[in-house]
Amino acid sequence: MRGDSDEDRGSPEGLGAAHIPPTIYVIKFHKNARREAVEFLLERIESKHKYGGAELFIRCEPQKPGQGLVVHVSATKIKLLEIAEATELQKATADGLIQELSVRELDQFLHGGLTLDTILTPAEKEFCVRHELDAIVARDERNVPGYPAFSLFPGQSIVDFYISEDIIESMFPLHERHHLELVSASWYKAVFFASAVDRIRDYFGEGIAMYFSFLSFYTMLLLVPAVLGLAQFVVDNDSFSEYTFYAVFNLIWVTVFLEVWKRHCCGLAYRWGTLERELGDKARRNHRGDLRRNPVTDTLEPFYPPWKTKAKLYLVSLPSVGLCVLAALYLMVLAFWAEEHVLDWKKHYGSVAAILLNVPSAIYAVVVWFLNFYYKKLAVFLTEWENHRTQLEHDWHRMAKLVVFEFVNNFSSLFYIAFYIQDLDMLRSQVATMLIVTQMINHFQEALLPLVVKKAYLKISAKVVQEVRAHKTLGTYFTPPARPVHEDAVEEQPIPVLSLDVKDPRITQAREEGELDVYEDTYDDYLELFLQFGYVFLFSSVYPMAAFWALLNNVLELKTDAFKLCRVFRRPRVKKVPNIGVWQNCFELLGYIAVGTNCALLCLSPKLRQLVPTVSDVEWVLIFVMSEHLILVAKMALMWLMPDQPLWVREALDKVAYQSKMALRSERGKRTRRHLSRRFRSVHGVPRSGSRSRGTTPVESNAVNGAIRRRGNSENY
Amino acid sequence: MRGDSDEDRGSPEGLGAAHIPPTIYVIKFHKNARREAVEFLLERIESKHKYGGAELFIRCEPQKPGQGLVVHVSATKIKLLEIAEATELQKATADGLIQELSVRELDQFLHGGLTLDTILTPAEKEFCVRHELDAIVARDERNVPGYPAFSLFPGQSIVDFYISEDIIESMFPLHERHHLELVSASWYKAVFFASAVDRIRDYFGEGIAMYFSFLSFYTMLLLVPAVLGLAQFVVDNDSFSEYTFYAVFNLIWVTVFLEVWKRHCCGLAYRWGTLERELGDKARRNHRGDLRRNPVTDTLEPFYPPWKTKAKLYLVSLPSVGLCVLAALYLMVLAFWAEEHVLDWKKHYGSVAAILLNVPSAIYAVVVWFLNFYYKKLAVFLTEWENHRTQLEHDWHRMAKLVVFEFVNNFSSLFYIAFYIQDLDMLRSQVATMLIVTQMINHFQEALLPLVVKKAYLKISAKVVQEVRAHKTLGTYFTPPARPVHEDAVEEQPIPVLSLDVKDPRITQAREEGELDVYEDTYDDYLELFLQFGYVFLFSSVYPMAAFWALLNNVLELKTDAFKLCRVFRRPRVKKVPNIGVWQNCFELLGYIAVGTNCALLCLSPKLRQLVPTVSDVEWVLIFVMSEHLILVAKMALMWLMPDQPLWVREALDKVAYQSKMALRSERGKRTRRHLSRRFRSVHGVPRSGSRSRGTTPVESNAVNGAIRRRGNSENY
Repeated sequence: MRGDSDEDRGSPEGLGAAHIPPTIYVIKFHKNARREAVEFLLERIESKHKYGGAELFIRCEPQKPGQGLVVHVSATKIKLLEIAEATELQKATADGLIQELSVRELDQFLHGGLTLDTILTPAEKEFCVRHELDAIVARDERNVPGYPAFSLFPGQSIVDFYISEDIIESMFPLHERHHLELVSASWYKAVFFASAVDRIRDYFGEGIAMYFSFLSFYTMLLLVPAVLGLAQFVVDNDSFSEYTFYAVFNLIWVTVFLEVWKRHCCGLAYRWGTLERELGDKARRNHRGDLRRNPVTDTLEPFYPPWKTKAKLYLVSLPSVGLCVLAALYLMVLAFWAEEHVLDWKKHYGSVAAILLNVPSAIYAVVVWFLNFYYKKLAVFLTEWENHRTQLEHDWHRMAKLVVFEFVNNFSSLFYIAFYIQDLDMLRSQVATMLIVTQMINHFQEALLPLVVKKAYLKISAKVVQEVRAHKTLGTYFTPPARPVHEDAVEEQPIPVLSLDVKDPRITQAREEGELDVYEDTYDDYLELFLQFGYVFLFSSVYPMAAFWALLNNVLELKTDAFKLCRVFRRPRVKKVPNIGVWQNCFELLGYIAVGTNCALLCLSPKLRQLVPTVSDVEWVLIFVMSEHLILVAKMALMWLMPDQPLWVREALDKVAYQSKMALRSERGKRTRRHLSRRFRSVHGVPRSGSRSRGTTPVESNAVNGAIRRRGNSENY
Repeated sequence: MRGDSDEDRGSPEGLGAAHIPPTIYVIKFHKNARREAVEFLLERIESKHKYGGAELFIRCEPQKPGQGLVVHVSATKIKLLEIAEATELQKATADGLIQELSVRELDQFLHGGLTLDTILTPAEKEFCVRHELDAIVARDERNVPGYPAFSLFPGQSIVDFYISEDIIESMFPLHERHHLELVSASWYKAVFFASAVDRIRDYFGEGIAMYFSFLSFYTMLLLVPAVLGLAQFVVDNDSFSEYTFYAVFNLIWVTVFLEVWKRHCCGLAYRWGTLERELGDKARRNHRGDLRRNPVTDTLEPFYPPWKTKAKLYLVSLPSVGLCVLAALYLMVLAFWAEEHVLDWKKHYGSVAAILLNVPSAIYAVVVWFLNFYYKKLAVFLTEWENHRTQLEHDWHRMAKLVVFEFVNNFSSLFYIAFYIQDLDMLRSQVATMLIVTQMINHFQEALLPLVVKKAYLKISAKVVQEVRAHKTLGTYFTPPARPVHEDAVEEQPIPVLSLDVKDPRITQAREEGELDVYEDTYDDYLELFLQFGYVFLFSSVYPMAAFWALLNNVLELKTDAFKLCRVFRRPRVKKVPNIGVWQNCFELLGYIAVGTNCALLCLSPKLRQLVPTVSDVEWVLIFVMSEHLILVAKMALMWLMPDQPLWVREALDKVAYQSKMALRSERGKRTRRHLSRRFRSVHGVPRSGSRSRGTTPVESNAVNGAIRRRGNSENY
């Protein structure tokens, strides 16, 4: 900034918005952040690669005393392309193959009307800038400038550290309003979303696009069971043999769906260039441990012995989760027991006790809500404490804990009714109630609540939280008496960085979007689908209508989610994912459990039993055990027979691999031959026999053999 | 040959054996092979790469009229290194990492006393020479010279074609006698083979070494169950609760073993450099189809629509195999039924019928032997007819057919006794008999028979077969009247290729080894272990002693197999494999089936049932169904929790990948920056501002940003 653009600083008002590339990221520093720390980071963002900088472009908003500095980060399109190549972004070439973007062969990627301006999608720009910001790491600095107590180690990400220590208050990508309008328009119009998915991916990135692709794919899957279920409801034929057909059909249908989805998803990931993307093996931000050289990269990083993580996981976390699950189960049984008692009382005391009829379930619901709330905190705490090395492992373990508990909370009462009370009618009404109520609550929470109530509430509470946080985490550094001095210093001398025009629309935009909620990740959305999937398929043999309600819900969900992302939340970070990750396994697991539950439900059904009165009880059970095993084997065979990658993806991957291998081999082959003939001729002292080695008859021996053979020395063979 | 070594040809007797590198391959042409075809191949073996040659070294044995030409193929050590690099052989470098052999950095690989002569093991030399021979492909030739009817397509392997058309009668690697002695000595001495495995790998290659490693590992696994089983036998405590413990222990033990083996195997494969080796995606030798451009490699190759292969597989092969399996099952039931009748007769007619007592089993045994014999032929025929594209698929489908049938043949009668007759004592004696008898037959067939009888027999029969084959396959080209003319021609003018000395010991060696049996592959050896594994673990809850007998057998097997490979068979081809392939899945599958059988056996056991008379029958069955599900889930969890690669292998792989990635990235980064600054400066017409871009203050903006910003044109961002 200082070296190159002294002219610019001389006349800041001469540089309008037109001179600055569109803002991609907004960084809001804490209002009490030390000046040295802020300047240090800004210098790093701007300076050259060789000095550990990100080579990005920054402008601050007009600085006001008592407010944190707000910086708009951007990059020229040339710089973005450079980053895109360095981060190994993959894009389609003119011949339809997906290859790593290469600036030297840029013309290959500029096809179909793409230009230098449009070759990178908004999502890719966001990804590139964020990548560079994250790549600003500590070099020789032993501590954060201005904060002697915050020590750094070489290679530690500075932005991550600033965020975790609250020096940076918030950091988020800014919406591209024009592009957003295009995306949301196509989104609202789309019926089954296949067409909109690519647009979503271009704007919101692969993680969110993958979720929507899954949602629309899953909704289509539901069509067939929904129609069948509805038909059964209309005909009102309660024969259990039809239920049997329906259940078995569903079990196979789910397997086929999950397999077809895997292939479809693989095709998407290929087109999006994320298929072979490694999910970072880097140590995560909050990983603690003694500094040690990483044996792979040979750089310093915090090392925590894996056996300690394992020990914590198996000796503490696993038993804790187990206890919580047991507690939830115990509560559930208690609620049923209380309800039974109330029913008893009702028989004895009549209508007086009838008032109490819903009290047990109500208490149960409230207790479960609290249990859930605290369990979430526990799960997050335990996972943090286990101290997993990579973000991937951390997310996985947190998710596993949460999903197990959600599963138990949502389905244990159904299992209890089905297999302990064995009342199939009660089960049916319970499934129906829970499915429909859960879905209604979700829609309310997701779209209506944030729009109407939450927003107003948050505006107030955010400030409170902010105040509290400031005192808590930075309290040790900013003691109240010291603050006025510090603030005065800021007033006297603004941080020397070029400023945006006061009327720049981006200032308003950044303020508005800063007030929106943060869209954490797709966890809640997938969880919702996961639970719905459970309601529909675990008990499909008693309540075929579930698929229909789920279908209705999902069609609505596609629209409310679109609204949520485009209007309610801040622009989310882009995540590059090759598939839906561990959720694929969760859905598959549920598919397997569904085989067990449905077979057991059919086995319990008294109507089905009546059809074959001659069969003994043991034989009746064995029939269903055999059927369960057969269906499981069929499912596994199906999953195993269907290749996970479609043929066209495999061929395309092979082609690219083959081409680069051939190029490498021919390059290396030439060098090796030169090397060999140089090395061994000189060793054996045989002069280069030019005339022979340049002979052209095809039957001539090769030069190396020939040269050595002529010496007639057996040692050389 | 002709061009370079005219001097040599002038004085063939002057070139003793000492001048020729040791023979690696022997090629024996058919005695009626056309002269042009032989000369064509020999020229190709010797000529340069650029003329489609293999650049290998050949000498023929002294030519005698009426006998096929025998050629000794070899290569100089320099050539071998060149091939080793081209085929991406991996070897240990001085720092312990496994990397692709690079001739330019050869010194890195020459450590621990290795020299240019010893850096390649005998197995690697064999692999290299064979690879080059296989790589001799047709170029512009439309047909085999001398055989106008044998058409070739560009890229077809000539050696493969010659072998399949019997122009080459046999082709095999010659033993390195000295090295063989070392290997077999260490082999006979070794107790549990861990030490000998590396030597075996050096000489026989990874495929065979992997088998021996598995065999010794599996033998060690058996130690614990064998001791427990023996203890039970000695104490003679027939309580079924102990059997229960034994059975459950075995089920878990097997899972642990298979997982530990997978990790161990991964470590071996890493050390041997085969871990990441691609198993050829090339079309196999006998793949038929219309010529088409391969979309990946863009070369011509026979194309057969995959859907046709699939259709044949599912519509013909699968039903055929199913029918054969049903036939085998039917025969088995028939035999039992006949035996029962004979027992009935015995009751009625006394000792007269007693003579017939063993007739049904005897007839059954004979019929099964024939059924097996013809089924093998059918399986081979069907797989060939399905016309799979790659050798891997072909082998897989042939193996699947054979293994399914072997499984049914060996175990169906045991399943029948266990679950239909439900006679556990009969089951026990049957398992014991079959296990011990099968093992004795195997040892007899493998080691004694070939040594004593087969060898003599084969000498006679081989000649007969040879005669018949010659008439049959080459009959169309060598009609009897034409032969004398052809043979005269051979007598008149020997094929112009340098000859070995008449007294060269390799001539005798080649003749002796040519008469030995061919060791096809490790299929039979693995199958034997697979069946044994079945006998031991499927029914371990009724016959714990099985593990002891299996252990005894395997200790013996380790020795007889060594003898077999070193003495009885020709030197086998080297196969580079990363693991035991599909057998791993077979063993795992058997492990899962064993859970079902053992739970069912325990459920059937009357002694165990007596312990809990209060439990109802349905509950009793449900207990075992639940236990089965629990054990299955535990097994799956165990398999899923244990990483397949040991940590050290992952770290080593990551390290090599990281190093090459960093090298590539820094290389490419430099080029991109040069390219970018050249391209965009010239486009925008901004002169190179040398003084600025060479500035050294760390806070300076990057040159590209600076250059464009100064132009003040918003279009360029």
